[in-house]
Amino acid sequence: MSGIKTQSVRKLMLFSGRAYPELAKEVAVNLDCELVPTAAYDFANGETFVRFLESVRGSDAFVIQSHTAPINQWIMEQLIMVDALKRASARRITVVAPFFGYARQDKKHRGREPISARLMADLFKTAGADRLITVDLHTAQIQGFFDGPVDHLFALELLADHVAKTLDTSQVTVVAPDAGRVRVAERWTDRLGCPLAIIHKRRDPLVANEVKVFEVVGQVEGRTCVIVDDMIDTGGTIVKAAEALFEQGAARVVVTATHGVLSGPAVDRLKNSRISEVVLTNTLPIPAEKQFDKLTILSIAPLLASAINEVFHDGSVTSLFDGEG
Amino acid sequence: MSGIKTQSVRKLMLFSGRAYPELAKEVAVNLDCELVPTAAYDFANGETFVRFLESVRGSDAFVIQSHTAPINQWIMEQLIMVDALKRASARRITVVAPFFGYARQDKKHRGREPISARLMADLFKTAGADRLITVDLHTAQIQGFFDGPVDHLFALELLADHVAKTLDTSQVTVVAPDAGRVRVAERWTDRLGCPLAIIHKRRDPLVANEVKVFEVVGQVEGRTCVIVDDMIDTGGTIVKAAEALFEQGAARVVVTATHGVLSGPAVDRLKNSRISEVVLTNTLPIPAEKQFDKLTILSIAPLLASAINEVFHDGSVTSLFDGEG
Amino acid sequence: MSGIKTQSVRKLMLFSGRAYPELAKEVAVNLDCELVPTAAYDFANGETFVRFLESVRGSDAFVIQSHTAPINQWIMEQLIMVDALKRASARRITVVAPFFGYARQDKKHRGREPISARLMADLFKTAGADRLITVDLHTAQIQGFFDGPVDHLFALELLADHVAKTLDTSQVTVVAPDAGRVRVAERWTDRLGCPLAIIHKRRDPLVANEVKVFEVVGQVEGRTCVIVDDMIDTGGTIVKAAEALFEQGAARVVVTATHGVLSGPAVDRLKNSRISEVVLTNTLPIPAEKQFDKLTILSIAPLLASAINEVFHDGSVTSLFDGEG
Amino acid sequence: MSGIKTQSVRKLMLFSGRAYPELAKEVAVNLDCELVPTAAYDFANGETFVRFLESVRGSDAFVIQSHTAPINQWIMEQLIMVDALKRASARRITVVAPFFGYARQDKKHRGREPISARLMADLFKTAGADRLITVDLHTAQIQGFFDGPVDHLFALELLADHVAKTLDTSQVTVVAPDAGRVRVAERWTDRLGCPLAIIHKRRDPLVANEVKVFEVVGQVEGRTCVIVDDMIDTGGTIVKAAEALFEQGAARVVVTATHGVLSGPAVDRLKNSRISEVVLTNTLPIPAEKQFDKLTILSIAPLLASAINEVFHDGSVTSLFDGEG
Amino acid sequence: MSGIKTQSVRKLMLFSGRAYPELAKEVAVNLDCELVPTAAYDFANGETFVRFLESVRGSDAFVIQSHTAPINQWIMEQLIMVDALKRASARRITVVAPFFGYARQDKKHRGREPISARLMADLFKTAGADRLITVDLHTAQIQGFFDGPVDHLFALELLADHVAKTLDTSQVTVVAPDAGRVRVAERWTDRLGCPLAIIHKRRDPLVANEVKVFEVVGQVEGRTCVIVDDMIDTGGTIVKAAEALFEQGAARVVVTATHGVLSGPAVDRLKNSRISEVVLTNTLPIPAEKQFDKLTILSIAPLLASAINEVFHDGSVTSLFDGEG
Amino acid sequence: MSGIKTQSVRKLMLFSGRAYPELAKEVAVNLDCELVPTAAYDFANGETFVRFLESVRGSDAFVIQSHTAPINQWIMEQLIMVDALKRASARRITVVAPFFGYARQDKKHRGREPISARLMADLFKTAGADRLITVDLHTAQIQGFFDGPVDHLFALELLADHVAKTLDTSQVTVVAPDAGRVRVAERWTDRLGCPLAIIHKRRDPLVANEVKVFEVVGQVEGRTCVIVDDMIDTGGTIVKAAEALFEQGAARVVVTATHGVLSGPAVDRLKNSRISEVVLTNTLPIPAEKQFDKLTILSIAPLLASAINEVFHDGSVTSLFDGEG
Repeated sequence: MSGIKTQSVRKLMLFSGRAYPELAKEVAVNLDCELVPTAAYDFANGETFVRFLESVRGSDAFVIQSHTAPINQWIMEQLIMVDALKRASARRITVVAPFFGYARQDKKHRGREPISARLMADLFKTAGADRLITVDLHTAQIQGFFDGPVDHLFALELLADHVAKTLDTSQVTVVAPDAGRVRVAERWTDRLGCPLAIIHKRRDPLVANEVKVFEVVGQVEGRTCVIVDDMIDTGGTIVKAAEALFEQGAARVVVTATHGVLSGPAVDRLKNSRISEVVLTNTLPIPAEKQFDKLTILSIAPLLASAINEVFHDGSVTSLFDGEG
Repeated sequence: MSGIKTQSVRKLMLFSGRAYPELAKEVAVNLDCELVPTAAYDFANGETFVRFLESVRGSDAFVIQSHTAPINQWIMEQLIMVDALKRASARRITVVAPFFGYARQDKKHRGREPISARLMADLFKTAGADRLITVDLHTAQIQGFFDGPVDHLFALELLADHVAKTLDTSQVTVVAPDAGRVRVAERWTDRLGCPLAIIHKRRDPLVANEVKVFEVVGQVEGRTCVIVDDMIDTGGTIVKAAEALFEQGAARVVVTATHGVLSGPAVDRLKNSRISEVVLTNTLPIPAEKQFDKLTILSIAPLLASAINEVFHDGSVTSLFDGEG
Repeated sequence: MSGIKTQSVRKLMLFSGRAYPELAKEVAVNLDCELVPTAAYDFANGETFVRFLESVRGSDAFVIQSHTAPINQWIMEQLIMVDALKRASARRITVVAPFFGYARQDKKHRGREPISARLMADLFKTAGADRLITVDLHTAQIQGFFDGPVDHLFALELLADHVAKTLDTSQVTVVAPDAGRVRVAERWTDRLGCPLAIIHKRRDPLVANEVKVFEVVGQVEGRTCVIVDDMIDTGGTIVKAAEALFEQGAARVVVTATHGVLSGPAVDRLKNSRISEVVLTNTLPIPAEKQFDKLTILSIAPLLASAINEVFHDGSVTSLFDGEG
Repeated sequence: MSGIKTQSVRKLMLFSGRAYPELAKEVAVNLDCELVPTAAYDFANGETFVRFLESVRGSDAFVIQSHTAPINQWIMEQLIMVDALKRASARRITVVAPFFGYARQDKKHRGREPISARLMADLFKTAGADRLITVDLHTAQIQGFFDGPVDHLFALELLADHVAKTLDTSQVTVVAPDAGRVRVAERWTDRLGCPLAIIHKRRDPLVANEVKVFEVVGQVEGRTCVIVDDMIDTGGTIVKAAEALFEQGAARVVVTATHGVLSGPAVDRLKNSRISEVVLTNTLPIPAEKQFDKLTILSIAPLLASAINEVFHDGSVTSLFDGEG
Repeated sequence: MSGIKTQSVRKLMLFSGRAYPELAKEVAVNLDCELVPTAAYDFANGETFVRFLESVRGSDAFVIQSHTAPINQWIMEQLIMVDALKRASARRITVVAPFFGYARQDKKHRGREPISARLMADLFKTAGADRLITVDLHTAQIQGFFDGPVDHLFALELLADHVAKTLDTSQVTVVAPDAGRVRVAERWTDRLGCPLAIIHKRRDPLVANEVKVFEVVGQVEGRTCVIVDDMIDTGGTIVKAAEALFEQGAARVVVTATHGVLSGPAVDRLKNSRISEVVLTNTLPIPAEKQFDKLTILSIAPLLASAINEVFHDGSVTSLFDGEG
Repeated sequence: MSGIKTQSVRKLMLFSGRAYPELAKEVAVNLDCELVPTAAYDFANGETFVRFLESVRGSDAFVIQSHTAPINQWIMEQLIMVDALKRASARRITVVAPFFGYARQDKKHRGREPISARLMADLFKTAGADRLITVDLHTAQIQGFFDGPVDHLFALELLADHVAKTLDTSQVTVVAPDAGRVRVAERWTDRLGCPLAIIHKRRDPLVANEVKVFEVVGQVEGRTCVIVDDMIDTGGTIVKAAEALFEQGAARVVVTATHGVLSGPAVDRLKNSRISEVVLTNTLPIPAEKQFDKLTILSIAPLLASAINEVFHDGSVTSLFDGEG
């Protein structure tokens, strides 16, 4: 018989873009390995360049990038990293996007709009991504946008543990801040054994055009309201929701969300609000200047590291998210 | 110069599968054309055969099939029709699926499940479909599952007109029967200018395992409750929701839904319930034996015909659904 | 050097759809393994749901489904299983279709027909299938419809062994029941060392339209005629062929075929005919009520198990079919 | 409204490779147009270069090439022409291959073989072909190898007309020269109202290894035997078939085939045989030095021109081949 | 016959991203049409949103975007615009990128680098682009990166006309500023009838590492040197090249380039150099603060408009670039 | 747990087409393995047939073919080999093309031309190739034509070593024979520490039409000129370049190139020229009758073997080409 035989070995390699290397390092520490040294910089006209400083042939590559602002910049960098891995003969490429950018543009709200979340999934596929790991997608349907395996992780356990430890859950009402979050809020009520309320935004019939009224549906008087959201972006909705809750007699409002986008006026709005505590994870970087007293940040790195480890060793990631995988 | 020139002409052709030809005929009447004569039958072992009895070369083909039970049979027939059109040189093929099958399997609820709605979208693409027309998808994100233009029509205007004509809207509260329907219910509250309530299903903390309690969130006492859903399948959830509303003092309960799946015990449950009226469209066939006194069926054919007409003439379908297209 | 290394291991996992689990179990016994526990059921409106109850990450997955009636149902279920395996990170997915559905629609017989056999091959590819194992395709060209490796197994050895053991081959004439089977019949004549006859269907010039005359070409007087076919569907052609043979003086007629579709009137026709014996394999289920005295069923499971084993261990399947692989 | 409007016009353009420009010119005459002037030549190392000398933007392009020897050369040239058309913005590209090369390698006869007919279909698709027109494929299944519309034309009418005019059909027996041609022979018996015989090749049980015996199945004594084949390559099989027929008392043997490959010793074999007439079409070039007294060549150009015309004008090609399209 | 017929009409629609709307407007003026009104903005976290304010169904859409800094931002916006057009049923989508971003990363200079120019071409294809129009690619091979028609326009005629009008060409020597530009420089020598010189960068053998010496190859003493480049980025190379020319006795140095990237210190370097004139086109925006006395900007809009017009009317773009198309 | 486990093993297998088996054998010797026995032949009409005589399941397959004349024949054979490997379940297929055919057609020089180099890359991908190994592409951008990893090897080290050993490099001037080779020539000047000259072809202003003048740019008087090219095809350019150098006083001219195409009059031209030595590698076969006194042939086999070995063992091929990988 012709041919040369050799034992087959698998090799996990961990790569980080420049958006939030601290998180990638934390993941590496949890996995007990090093990040692959990588040269990455922008040319003067903004073009991004990436080169890996070690051979990546045959590797099981995981490329971590947080889709934070400037988000187009970091998504493009991650695409370029995937292309470089593909051309350098990585065996399998997994995109790790703790926050998946453009997730809110997951449908056409009106005619002649893009569905950018699907576009991003296709761009990653085109660049060469085989798999995707992400946390708390804006809608779970986005899993179906990617043509390949998606490990969709949930921060609920991490966040709910914190809430359960710090609040008297018999006083808690879980609040969905809008129609899209009711399903997640229901998972919280089951986890904590608490009642539900929702914020219903509707047009004010007394005022013309798009003015919205925040109406509380459900009982919140005297309760500790825990608003659960997937992300806090400008904070506008959350703060108005909190106000509506206080108007209805809420005793206290705590906010939890997986992704701290915290753009524009978000920090000031939250700081100046009557919200008692804001609990986030670090799927996105929250720089020192955006941190404030009432803010608690929980690390998502252990969850990401566990998922990467399971994927590499062909274990079951399902166990990571409480029967929801 | 070499070559032969001719004027370019476009030709709309309308095809129907065997699932629900009556609807297709109604659409044809609305468009003022004939269905293309088609031979379709099953071989003794269940294999489906289709052949068109007129040339379809260069046509702008619209293939209508209602994804009713036996649903796998009818989806497969539609795929085979699309394949035959592709191989017979149709210029453009639009799948018209008034109810898009498998829409509820739009994500992995747990690990190791399929995402069948994405699979169906891909199967249609593979068979040769260029475009998709459908009504009230279970979640709007399914638009993004198809790699091409999707015209997503809404029955809201049709259903809400009926409600507005037959009920005193000042007495109406719109009710979302579960977390996934809240967003649609909000569109109804804006359309009718009514308040909102939702049905919150949660585990009964007093009883083990998956027992769910139907809890009404919001005020319904003395109100005419209009439960708005995308489909009624076995009717279990709807009937329990109605009961919960009556327990909370609702004066009257009306149910509207776009898709009348009405499988298994649905008809008996609805008939025997205290629900006053059930309003459906005919995106799916509702045979005589499933019809009952309290049931109103509105025809979706004019909406489908308008959309097909706009697509054929490159008009704007956005106008068909009140700024939401 | 960065990275974590581990030994690479391969894991065969065997899955069965609901069409004919008995065959899959028999294959599992031959391989000395268990079927992967799988939840599969239909929703009330006919939608199929599948979930695997064990992790399948990194597995070499083989999905067995017999394409029996209701055939669209079972093909769709197998597609959904493949989708679920792809999304659950199976490393390689092999579709095992002992009888490949729609194989007879392998060309356009007339204009504006589908080529459903190619469509099915493409649908499996789209769902995520990497490879295909099948037995006695209606035409061998169907191998080329699938864009990937196809292991095309032959039942000839199994069937011919039985014939050689039970008949005096010096008295046997092999008979092709129609033009499409002549090539396979030639393999039988070589295997058994017997002469050939064929049934020639032609239009009756005395009667209008599609009336066919069954004409025997070749000498069959006083001979034991063994009609060899790939499948018996309604049995009409086979029984008429047998009659034509008896008219030409055949002493005895035995029928062999790989696939027992046996739809509609097949069983009655065969039972009531002068055919001495019908020999089939169990690529398709033949329920007790379809079995009859003259029927012999040989198990295809050992052949399937050998092929799966060779594929898993990178052996040569060619050896399984006598130089024809 | 923004935008500039213009009337849409379609333009047929006809291109020819260098394999057999005479046929392309004949087609052009039948269509009453000119071939597009094209520069095509080989570089010294054998690389092929093609450039069109007129703008082809927006054209409905038909590229004719006969797959004659050196066949790889001419297929590659046609692929390069298709690529050039794609990059020059032709609107639709139809490959016209009167004889489709590699059609005989339409399945794996044994393990580890290519399926070259599928490969060729895929190569044309990759280069940019949208459609395919061809004549008398070796097996009709090859239609299914191409992912798009195939117009499969039949020369039967052309050849059978000639036979019907020149022979007394009451004396004719149609003969299939091997198992693969029986189906086509049956179409001839229906067309001419004649009986059938077949040549059965089997291993000689008295001689070791692959020696084949040519056995006549059916009555040919005193008959005018018309052997019908799709192609004559080296002529070996045909001439041996004729000898077997004469041995069984045939009065006369005529041979018809669509494709005159006529490679190697074919011409000498046919000339020196007792065959009365050989009837071919010019799907492949038959140079003067290969022509001989008994040879009749019928032109396929009118059939090709009709098909191109129908495709261009969206007519029905089905009419071209007697209900078989 | 079934079906509805209508005359086919084509409609050119012109779209602009936000990178450089002034150029798009200039193109629109040249075409005598309006830009399609478009809503485009960034969310607070940097995600880009686009919506067209008119129906685009069936249009022949041209999407203009200059790939200027922040380049990842503008490429992503153009991708999103293409996705929105695809989903809104545009008939054909042409990406117009006067300067094609990432063109310099057209190969792996070393191992483990991306080929970003190919990646960009694939991303546009994935988003839905059918065609590409661009000017003076860094290397002409990039045309081959896009799987579809590319109209590659040349600014040479525009720039050379200016040079011929303003300089005494009998005194001119054309200078290639590095090895990659020699081929373009040769086109200039043919156009102007002038001699050639090149700047040869080589490592200084006397100094360690990557120090480069700029060596003039060819005669430049007393000559008017016209350095021809495709783009000026930081200006470093150009200014050193000019210095080397003056050292060798050049009387005067003029610089021409198609793309004025002008990043970082470029403007200061050019202003402070002894270069007499810098001639650029406006494929990229050159804001007022980057303009300086010696700078001449020629408009590329007429060339783009002509190309769009030819593409829309199926004319020959080849005529636009002097036999090079 | 269900399933059967086995250790994963990798197996390198080496295949050769018929273009230049001697080189493949030399590579095999360098790797210390055998070529896989393969049946390959042409049918009488020129169709190519290939079959492997050993099982190739699961192998890491490398298919070597030199793209020499008749080049279309050998490329098609290699495509067919790749197809056969894909269908026989090879795990990974690497095309080894020491000289990549059609590399010079890497762009449209004028309108309505193909980009054949991209077409070839796509054909290999379609046939089933996962990777590509090649030497000294005509332009490095061709790497980007293939959608997958390309290992682009350089013969510079091999050729330059020979030059450094046989010539006094202090007397050497490196000469680029045309504009396209200047970049490679610069790598030689850095490698040898020598000055540069280039041959500038321009239209003769005194003579009409395409007459080209060969002008030497740079100092060559009294120097040993080493012309460096990627390939020598007909030798016309090289010999004229040498003459131009002698006219400018060159003392001696040596020519090196990676690929010895040597078609048509090449050998006579080189033999009869004043060139002292021609140094080539054997990426293409150079038969005895094309060899001559002044010709030196260096073997490329060790470089190919090293690259294959690195690819198989997931090492870094970058090390093979001096930081240029």
